[in-house]
Order: sequence, then structure tokens, then C-alpha cells
Amino acid sequence: MPGNTFGTLFRITTAGESHGPGNVVIIDGVPAGIELSVDDLQPDLDRRRPGQSKVTTQRKEADEPEILSGVFEGRTTGTSIAILIRNEDQRSKDYADIKDKYRPGHADYTFDAKYGFRDYRGGGRSSARETNVRVAAGAVAKKLLRQWHGVSIVGYVKQIGHLAADIPSPEKVTLEQVESNIVRCPDAEVAEQMVELIEQMRTEMDSVGGIAEVVASGVPAGWGEPVFDKLKADLGKAMFTLPAVMGVEYGAGFGVATARGSANNDLFTTLDGRITTRSNRHGGMLGGISSGLPVVIRCAIKPTSSIPREQETVTSRGEPTTISTKGRHDPCLLPRFVPMAEAMVAIVLADHCLRQNAMTRANPS
Amino acid sequence: MPGNTFGTLFRITTAGESHGPGNVVIIDGVPAGIELSVDDLQPDLDRRRPGQSKVTTQRKEADEPEILSGVFEGRTTGTSIAILIRNEDQRSKDYADIKDKYRPGHADYTFDAKYGFRDYRGGGRSSARETNVRVAAGAVAKKLLRQWHGVSIVGYVKQIGHLAADIPSPEKVTLEQVESNIVRCPDAEVAEQMVELIEQMRTEMDSVGGIAEVVASGVPAGWGEPVFDKLKADLGKAMFTLPAVMGVEYGAGFGVATARGSANNDLFTTLDGRITTRSNRHGGMLGGISSGLPVVIRCAIKPTSSIPREQETVTSRGEPTTISTKGRHDPCLLPRFVPMAEAMVAIVLADHCLRQNAMTRANPS
Amino acid sequence: MPGNTFGTLFRITTAGESHGPGNVVIIDGVPAGIELSVDDLQPDLDRRRPGQSKVTTQRKEADEPEILSGVFEGRTTGTSIAILIRNEDQRSKDYADIKDKYRPGHADYTFDAKYGFRDYRGGGRSSARETNVRVAAGAVAKKLLRQWHGVSIVGYVKQIGHLAADIPSPEKVTLEQVESNIVRCPDAEVAEQMVELIEQMRTEMDSVGGIAEVVASGVPAGWGEPVFDKLKADLGKAMFTLPAVMGVEYGAGFGVATARGSANNDLFTTLDGRITTRSNRHGGMLGGISSGLPVVIRCAIKPTSSIPREQETVTSRGEPTTISTKGRHDPCLLPRFVPMAEAMVAIVLADHCLRQNAMTRANPS
Amino acid sequence: MPGNTFGTLFRITTAGESHGPGNVVIIDGVPAGIELSVDDLQPDLDRRRPGQSKVTTQRKEADEPEILSGVFEGRTTGTSIAILIRNEDQRSKDYADIKDKYRPGHADYTFDAKYGFRDYRGGGRSSARETNVRVAAGAVAKKLLRQWHGVSIVGYVKQIGHLAADIPSPEKVTLEQVESNIVRCPDAEVAEQMVELIEQMRTEMDSVGGIAEVVASGVPAGWGEPVFDKLKADLGKAMFTLPAVMGVEYGAGFGVATARGSANNDLFTTLDGRITTRSNRHGGMLGGISSGLPVVIRCAIKPTSSIPREQETVTSRGEPTTISTKGRHDPCLLPRFVPMAEAMVAIVLADHCLRQNAMTRANPS
Repeated sequence: MPGNTFGTLFRITTAGESHGPGNVVIIDGVPAGIELSVDDLQPDLDRRRPGQSKVTTQRKEADEPEILSGVFEGRTTGTSIAILIRNEDQRSKDYADIKDKYRPGHADYTFDAKYGFRDYRGGGRSSARETNVRVAAGAVAKKLLRQWHGVSIVGYVKQIGHLAADIPSPEKVTLEQVESNIVRCPDAEVAEQMVELIEQMRTEMDSVGGIAEVVASGVPAGWGEPVFDKLKADLGKAMFTLPAVMGVEYGAGFGVATARGSANNDLFTTLDGRITTRSNRHGGMLGGISSGLPVVIRCAIKPTSSIPREQETVTSRGEPTTISTKGRHDPCLLPRFVPMAEAMVAIVLADHCLRQNAMTRANPS
Repeated sequence: MPGNTFGTLFRITTAGESHGPGNVVIIDGVPAGIELSVDDLQPDLDRRRPGQSKVTTQRKEADEPEILSGVFEGRTTGTSIAILIRNEDQRSKDYADIKDKYRPGHADYTFDAKYGFRDYRGGGRSSARETNVRVAAGAVAKKLLRQWHGVSIVGYVKQIGHLAADIPSPEKVTLEQVESNIVRCPDAEVAEQMVELIEQMRTEMDSVGGIAEVVASGVPAGWGEPVFDKLKADLGKAMFTLPAVMGVEYGAGFGVATARGSANNDLFTTLDGRITTRSNRHGGMLGGISSGLPVVIRCAIKPTSSIPREQETVTSRGEPTTISTKGRHDPCLLPRFVPMAEAMVAIVLADHCLRQNAMTRANPS
Repeated sequence: MPGNTFGTLFRITTAGESHGPGNVVIIDGVPAGIELSVDDLQPDLDRRRPGQSKVTTQRKEADEPEILSGVFEGRTTGTSIAILIRNEDQRSKDYADIKDKYRPGHADYTFDAKYGFRDYRGGGRSSARETNVRVAAGAVAKKLLRQWHGVSIVGYVKQIGHLAADIPSPEKVTLEQVESNIVRCPDAEVAEQMVELIEQMRTEMDSVGGIAEVVASGVPAGWGEPVFDKLKADLGKAMFTLPAVMGVEYGAGFGVATARGSANNDLFTTLDGRITTRSNRHGGMLGGISSGLPVVIRCAIKPTSSIPREQETVTSRGEPTTISTKGRHDPCLLPRFVPMAEAMVAIVLADHCLRQNAMTRANPS
Repeated sequence: MPGNTFGTLFRITTAGESHGPGNVVIIDGVPAGIELSVDDLQPDLDRRRPGQSKVTTQRKEADEPEILSGVFEGRTTGTSIAILIRNEDQRSKDYADIKDKYRPGHADYTFDAKYGFRDYRGGGRSSARETNVRVAAGAVAKKLLRQWHGVSIVGYVKQIGHLAADIPSPEKVTLEQVESNIVRCPDAEVAEQMVELIEQMRTEMDSVGGIAEVVASGVPAGWGEPVFDKLKADLGKAMFTLPAVMGVEYGAGFGVATARGSANNDLFTTLDGRITTRSNRHGGMLGGISSGLPVVIRCAIKPTSSIPREQETVTSRGEPTTISTKGRHDPCLLPRFVPMAEAMVAIVLADHCLRQNAMTRANPS
């Protein structure tokens, strides 16, 4: 066991369920002296929380964090930081339906197979609700990265269904562009169509998948640890820890399958006296180590499993039955996925920032 | 640092470079009493080694393993198992070319940026040579999985360039089918075209990418640890630790981006009294926990970066120059990638086998 | 960094300071299905809390735990368990004295040297207050050990100053005996003298050290992992993580220095058909693996550093000054140390219980 | 499982048995650029190896290390370093005696209880032979510590039986003093008596225990990670991983049990403008963090379990029998224990050196 800890030096450990008292994260490995308050956490939490716009679930959660430790007089002390987000929307629903039936596409059955029973209220530990404290931890990681190295991390929606955004320069996308519309797609024109598609899904009692992209700019060359903790490996894992992620790629991604080496290789050159490459098909990582170019990573997100249509399934005793997931669900997970993905990218980069720093002699003597 | 260890309970730690004395793996966490000898390791090593066929590099390495510890009278003792594979093909080449020039697509530059200098002989630690001991460790993992749970793991080439194999039932592909041709593609017809394409690449002094697929059958429902060590997350990381992997997906993979929930959900049903699903778009994992269905995972492999054509690059001092990688390289990495991917899947599954076992009460009292 | 996590399979991560909002522990690796409520935690918390008797500090803390996750309908779910204990006695003291002065024997100076600044209120993270959540976690570990293997763990005070208890059979000491007096010494006669000595210390504005012993009975033979995670090594570390511990020994301990092998070896014999030893100088561990005999471990605890006498010291700028620790401190740490030590022993044993279980085949197939 | 890895950033993983092909260590986390060759390893290996003097076992092992990886052109590359030491003295003995009988004081019985069977040749994995690669790794750690921070580590024998050395200033003991006699005791007079005592033990077919002390000078203030990876906790664990260690203490150690706080507190003062303490009863660690004073740690070592006298025991089937350990054993483990203890102290300090470095901003930007 122990699957609730992530990271080596910048390390998070989480707990909490969808309908329990709350979710908590302990962040270990934050250097001392970084200014931190709940105001640093709230903006990303607001981007993740339910009920934020008409394209997301209408469930309401304020997601207000409380910092329980590790911060003194407005600065991190170097000791472990605990952040608690209490659950609010714990309405005493009738869960009889999902208590004994397996929702298609959900972890109900696999949790039962693993643990023998499960907290069925709203998905329990398998609910995406647990990601709220990850987003809080990610905000801390972002601060560290920005302050120590000027790294910035921006995620956005690249595709929903067949609607693909046109993003000529991923590294130039700004947070403002992303937040200018409720689907978080920097291509304003396609964004409008995406909103329509999501509303159509809600009407059709269906859901739709998509692709999100995260770009980390300013990552110095040299981060990532051969051979198992390559940056691509830790980022890849981080993305796959997020609910509904079915695929991850970086740089040219699956496009390399049909490419020739002569066209796929990014040629080295110099720019302003610094070594760089002419193109970035390698997604900012070579041999699993950052190259100094923007790190570009993409995730394929499946359509929400919870749909209000009636679907065939079985009970926990294996008897055939049907289920239609009532309640309030996102017809498309993408808009709220963006801050989750940014957070996990930030956590991995903060970890590798410290790992590389560990091996660099600070004070020659 | 420490990036040379992988796994929690079934854990491997490796060392070694392309042209040093050899590569070594220490496998920790193998239960006592499993029959083991070098004969269990050699078959997969032979599938991975260079020079095995006309479509691979013509470099020669026998890759004969020596078991240094952890096995007594033919059985594992429960203590750590060290396996050493000495390098043979350490011909004293003229490395002047790659010593000071950065090969496009390689880790030369990023290693320099990270460590300040590098073992440039044949790529040093960034060479795929290090995977030979992973394959040896994977053979041990396969034995454990087969013996304790009857799990079988089969990988194969699914696509090279635009040539895509037709694999109607991934879970029915056998090792014999895979090994019946030198590209390791179970679709015999397409396999022939693949061989031709690879030979064409060699003639054109170019290389080509592709997609490999690995299927693990017999994995019981319940493996994988929420929320960070989900089976999909650990498998995803494992695949990205392998050289040249640019993308990973499982089940329906990136295809979910354009799917609707109503079509994407695999509906639960029963078969022979056991709960299962009617389709396997979820790739054998729900909520990151195995569902009992075959685990299906795919990797996108980039075309070999080393090509004999002249390409522009810079020296370590940033001066423009050209480079053409001499030596003997695979025009396509896919055929030799298959056993590497199988090994990493086996190592992850063996780890989660033990992790799940840890939480299951063995001897009620 | 990351020093706030302990354990491999049964793993705790903690956060919290003396005068912050509260302390929290996340316990990862508790098998599903164990009955658990705050009632299981409170008894040991009451044994640890300040203000429990006249021989301890008169500070008041109720130490009431809240279980935030991982328990559903009265049973553990197998997911991570978070427990929060809010601080109550956060009176807004005048900390000016300890803010800039280094208290002798405390971590004020070393925290400053490490982090650049510190939460000086009541010792911040270096306060023994953080152990309250360890005691809560220990109560969970004790339940697991009792339920799966019938293990019982009893600690007590063996010596305070020169007053040494007479404990003829460590493995026969009961919790009732220990709790029958306020110093937690099972030798009733010496216990009375200990109470007097502690009161004398308070009168003399001084403090006194001592030795605590913990006995774990019912540990099956075979727990402990060569060569670094020997049971003695993990227990030894666990004890040294506790504040004020200056020495740890098990079995014959430092007495072996003057012993001969012929007298020190515990001879093997059989009892009721089971292999055992005639004596237990080995403290229940041979080669770092449990032998089936009671595990017996002892800690040397220094006299409380905080004493109300005036002592010479320096300011954080190195200027000479004096300090007398006002406030309410234990003149002897031993009585409250006992539940802390028991908790850490329980946590280590629960971890090794699961580690050994992981390697034992549960369901032959 | 996995108990064969030690350390977080400077991390060693070992494998090997007493009579197998050899022992191997993989050291992960050595920064790039440190000069390293086998000549750096041999001196400490020679201090540990059997057959070095008349007071040790007369078994012969050259213990010549081979560096398999991680060093290129005489310098560490930053990648994992594997070191192999082949076993030489694998004479085909008659092991019938120890195959089925449990040697008192040894791990024969507990290994059988744990694993179901064992490599009985010379103790297999439980033999102290495995420490040779730890000593090699320790030599690497010592180099790092010396080069980055000027830390020096010196261990010596402080007591054998009732013969206690007089060491007025532990921090002034030099390697030369230690190596000036074959028992490694810096008190020349007592050293002679120790030699006599050991020879007497051999004559009497008995063995004797003792106490070793290790002093690390030059450790900067600030190393050690609250609350679980305190320096004292990691050093304590490290010592207990070594065979035959029954007790560990630092600074005033068990002497604190009878001390008063007023006398035990080390008062802060300044020396040459630096904050320090007037005495070092705290053994160089406060709150588990180094204080800048010498780190002083002591281990109690039991008398060798293997003695040539006949002792009662049982067979693996529980039948009463007798055993007399033939072969060549140390009548006292202390002289050869010194380099092992130094190595483990060095490994812990190197780890904490890097851990502290990780959190210190190297390159402000």
C-alpha cells in the first residue's frame, strides 16, 4: 500500500473522501522563507471548484483552505505544511442506488474487489474531489518555481470532441487568455463552439472527452533523474494519477509513430549565446532531462462516466440491473481538469527543482 | 537525486553504462522459494540483445547474465538478487566526434547541462544498453506473476510508420505469434511489409517510429493503490522510463477525446458467475485499479535519433558544426523495444501484486 | 528534506506546531475492515496529554481527535486516515524572551541554523506537542497488531534518577499495573519514591532524567528485513525520533560490553513443541529478525531542558544573556514518555507485520 | 520487504552473501565531478577485512573492489556507482553441522522462520561479510563530506570487557592514533591490555564484547530533518543495522538517566564569533539537528556468538543437540567493527548533507 504520497523532496500526502469531513494534504519539503497565505491558494482552487460556470457541475463547494501548520508570520518555516479543505455539500442523499450497483466507468467495482467494501457516498476516495488539495499544493509548488527559477506553468483545453483549438505557439499562451472563457481554451473561436457542444451534451444526457495541454516555460536545462525518475516519467505518472486520464504524450507525442528520424530530430543551434534547438518536437525533454525549451505535455480525458441516461449494469451480487446517474455532473471534465493538471506538473517540477539543487554545491569551501 | 531505483515492494536498482565494465541490477523484494537460474533470464535477454536479426543493429553483445546473490540451490532466498551483465563490445572507438558535438535527439546536451560532463562513449548511462538488466529483472517478475497468479504478459509491435497491424483480439496474441517474425508483429502480412520498410530506412539512411502494445492477462481485480500509485500511473511511469517513448495510452487511449460517455462506458455484466464488462475500452483499469480484464497499454516510440545522414548541430561550446552518426544503429527501435516494455509491465505488476498481498490477511488468528 | 513521514507500508506523515491551529497525521496503509472510532484513540491520548497529574506539566490540552477520512460506518476503508487534533492552549503569551534567546538544551539554535528563522512559540515544530498525533496513530497500529496477531505492547518507567524499579519479568507487566500510579512504574514501592523525587525537582527548580522500557509480546518469529530494515534498526530509529532520547538498547543492551559469549548466548530449546530460547538476552531479535520471544527495548531520556532557574546563554546575535524558562514544564519527562514510546513501537511493528505479510503467499493458486 | 536500501539522497542498495560469488553495492546520489578510484576504497576495506592481525579471524579475503559504473576518466559522473567485491574464501566446507542446527546467538533460526529456508553457508546474508561493500560506500561518502565541508570521521574502540580507554578529548583522536595498534584503541596503554584480553578469550574458547565510539568533526550546524529523520534517528538506525549492535547512545547517552537538567544542559556561548556550547553532553545534536559541535555516538557490541565451545541447541526439527562453532572467528568483534561504524556514520552524514543542500537556494535568480 501507501499510495497516498507523491514526490521525493517536494512531497505531498493526501487524505479525504467526497462526502467525509474534508480533504487534507501535508506538503513536506517546502524550503523555509517563502511567503504563503490562503490567498495564494484560493485562485487555483476557484478554477477547480464545482459550480463555477454553466459548463460544469452545479454542485456547490466553496473550497476554502485552512493552513494548519508550516507557516509562521506569513512565511514557510521549512516544516511540513498541512492544508485542510472541509466538505460543505454533504447533503444526506439517498445513496441506495449506487450503494449496491456498479456505475459503468467508475471505480465502484474495483474498490469493492480491492477492499471488500467502500465508502459509496459520491465515490468516496475515488471521487475527483480529492484533487482539491492537490491544487492547493500545486499553488505552493508554483510559488517556489516562480521565485527560485521564474518558471511559469499554463494549462488549457486543446480539444473537446472533434473541436480542436488552433494553438500556434503553446509557450505563448497566457493565463489571461485561458481564463477569458469558461472552457479554458485560448482559441476564442473554437472555445465558443466547445461551450455549445458541452451544452448539447447536457441536453442529450451524454458527455464528451477531450485533450488538455500544459506548458511549463522557464524550466532550466538539467532537471530529471536518469534512469527511472526521468522528468518525462514523473510527469507521465503525475498525469495518470488524475481521474479520467487515458493517455499522456509530450512534444510530438503519438505523432512520432509515423515520423522519420531525419524529420523528427530537433537540430541544435544557439540563440543569444545559449544552446537550444530549432524546433521543439522533443517537448522540452531529451533523455528524460529538461533541455531548457518549454516542457509541453498533453492528456487525453475520457467523457464523464456519470451520465443521466439509463445504462445496464449489475449489482454487487452480480444481478443484472440498470442505473442512471442522477445528481449534478460535468458533461465534460476538461475545463476543471486544467488547474488539476497544472498543479501536478508544478508538483513534479518543484520536486525535480529540489532534486537537482541537492546535487549542486551551494557553498564551496 | 536517486533516480536509479524503481518500485516499492518488488524493487529494482540499476547501474551501468554503455561502454563501462557492465550493467548490474539489484532486485529487492522477491519472495523466497521461487526457482530461478540464468536459464530463466536468457530468453528475454536474447529478444532484447543487439545483432539478433537483419532489422536490428549489427552490434554484437551476448548479454550473458551472472546471478551474484539471492539464489541458493536453485531457489530464491528472499534476500536481494544481484545480476551482472558484462559489456563485451567495448571496442576502442574514436569518440572524438560525439565527445564535443551534440547528437540531435540524444541526451548529450542535457547530460552536460545536468552533470557538467558526461561519459560520452556510446551514450554512457543514457544508452538503451542499461535496459538489459531491466529485462533480466522483468524475467524474474514474470516468474513470480505466473506462479502466484497465472498472469501472462505479451507485447508486440502494433504499428511502424503508417503500417498498422490488425489485431482483433489483443488478449489472444501469443508469444509464439510474436516471435514468428523478426519485427515481433503478430499480423504476419503487415510484418513482412514492416521488415521491408525498415530495410528501406537503412538504405535511405533514415529511421522510423512506431507503436508497441503490451497485454497482461490474468491480473486479478484489485491491484493498484489510490490515489497516486494507481496501476495506470505506475504503468505509465514505467513506460516513460524507457528510451524513446513519447506517448503512453491504455484501453481506448487518445480515442476517448472524441468519444461520448454513452458509447465509451464499458457496461458491467457477468460471465461464468464472475463480474466483468462487455467491452474493454477501459484497458483493464478503473479508478486506477485492475478490473480483472486484460490490461492493455500502448507506447509511441520515436524514430531512432542516430541516423547516418549529416545533420546540423553545435559543439559543446556552441559552435555550429555537422554530425553524422556512424556506427551501427537500429533503423527502427520497435522490434527490440517489445521485451523492454514487457519487462517494465511485469515489474510494475509484481510490485502491485505484493502491495495488494501486504494488505490481505494471510493467516487469520 | 521530507522528514515528516515514517514507515514503509504502515506509514505516518505528520504536521503541526506547538501553538499553531493543530496537529495532523495521515496514516497510510491501514488494511480495510478494522473497526475504528475516536474512542480507540482517546485512552492513549489521555495518557500522553499534559495536565494529567501532579507530576506533569499543568498546561491543559484536551487532545480530542477528529477523524477526517478513511473510516466509513465505523470501519477503516483501506484508504488514508487523517486525524486532526486542534491546539487549545494557545494563550497569547509574551514570547519575547525565547524569540531572541537560545534556550539551553533546546532546538532553538539548531532550527535557526537550519531554516534561517523559526516558529518560536512554545518550540514550534520542535515541541513534543507533535507527538500527540503519533500516539493517535499508534493506537491504530495497536489495534491492527492485536487483531491480526494478538500482539500486546506495554511500556513503563524503569528508572528515574537513581531510583531503579525491580521488574523481574518484563513480559508480565500489565497496563493495569503501569496505570496504577502516576509515574507509570509497575514497581509500586519505587513508584512512590519517584513521585517524591519529581516533586523535589519541581521544588528545586530542576529536572531529572530516566529510563523507559517497552515490551511487545506475541510478535511472531520472522519480522524484520535484512540488512538495513532490521527490526532492531527500525525500532531504534523510532525511539530516537522521540524528543529527549539520548540512548536506546534492547535485550542485554550495553551490558553486553562486559559479557562473555559463553554467558551471553541464549541457548535454543523447545517449549510446548515450539522452538524458543532459555533466556532473552537477545531482546526478542536475532539478526534483526524477531525470534518469537518478547521484544524488549529501553530508552534513556534526558532531564527536561526547560528549568525555571536562570541559566547563561546567548541571543541569536551571539550576545551573552541569561534565560529562565517560565511556563509550565514537566520536571521529569518519563511518565508522559511511556505512551509515546509504545506508539512508536506499535507503528514499527505494524509496518513489519505488513511487510512480512506482503511476501507470504495469501492465496495459493 | 525491500530492506536492502539505505538513505534518501545519498543512497546505497546492497546484495550478497558470505559464500556466494560476491557482494555488490549500488550507490545512488553521488554528485558529479568527485575524483574516485579503487585506491580510495582499499584503505578502509583493509581495515575491515578478516585476517588483518592476530586479534581477528584468520580467514583470508583480499576484498579487492571493482568499480562497475558511475566513474569516467577518474571522476564520478553523477550516475549510479556499482562496486563489486568478489568472495575468495569459498572453500567447500562441510556445512552439515550448521545446515540443520541453530547456532546460539545467530540468525539461523529467525531466517528459517522468516523465509522457510536459508543459505546456511557461513551465515549467508546474515553474515557480517555484507558489510564490506558498505565500507566501500562509506569511503565514497567520506570523500564527499571532506570535499564539500571538511568533515572528518574517526572511530575507535572505547571499551572491551571491563577495559575502558581513557579518551579525554574524543574530537582530537586521529586516524593515526587509532591505527597505531591492532585493537584500534587510541589509549595505547589500555590497548595493550585489550590485545591480551582478546588472546585470553581465544585460549579460553570464549569471546568478549565492548563499546566503540565514532566522532564526526566539522559537521555544520543545521543537518537533520524533523521530526522523523532527525540526525540522531538516522544515525541510530544506521548503527543498529550493523551486526551485533545491542545499544546506541550519543553524547551523555545513558548517563542522562541519573542527571539533573541544571547540570545536563550545555550552555550556549560564543567562540571566535561563532555560537557554540561550553560542553558537549548533547553529542553534537539538539532537536535531532546538528549543532556544529562534534557528533559523538557510541555502540555496544555483543561478544561474538560463534565460540568453539560446545553449546546446547536444537535442530531445525526441534530436537535437542549440541554445537561447537568450528572455523575461524573473531574472539572480539570490536577492532573490525570500527571501519564499519565509520562507514555508516559517513553514509548518514552524506545523505543529510545533500538533504540540507536541497533546501538551500544555490543560484538566486
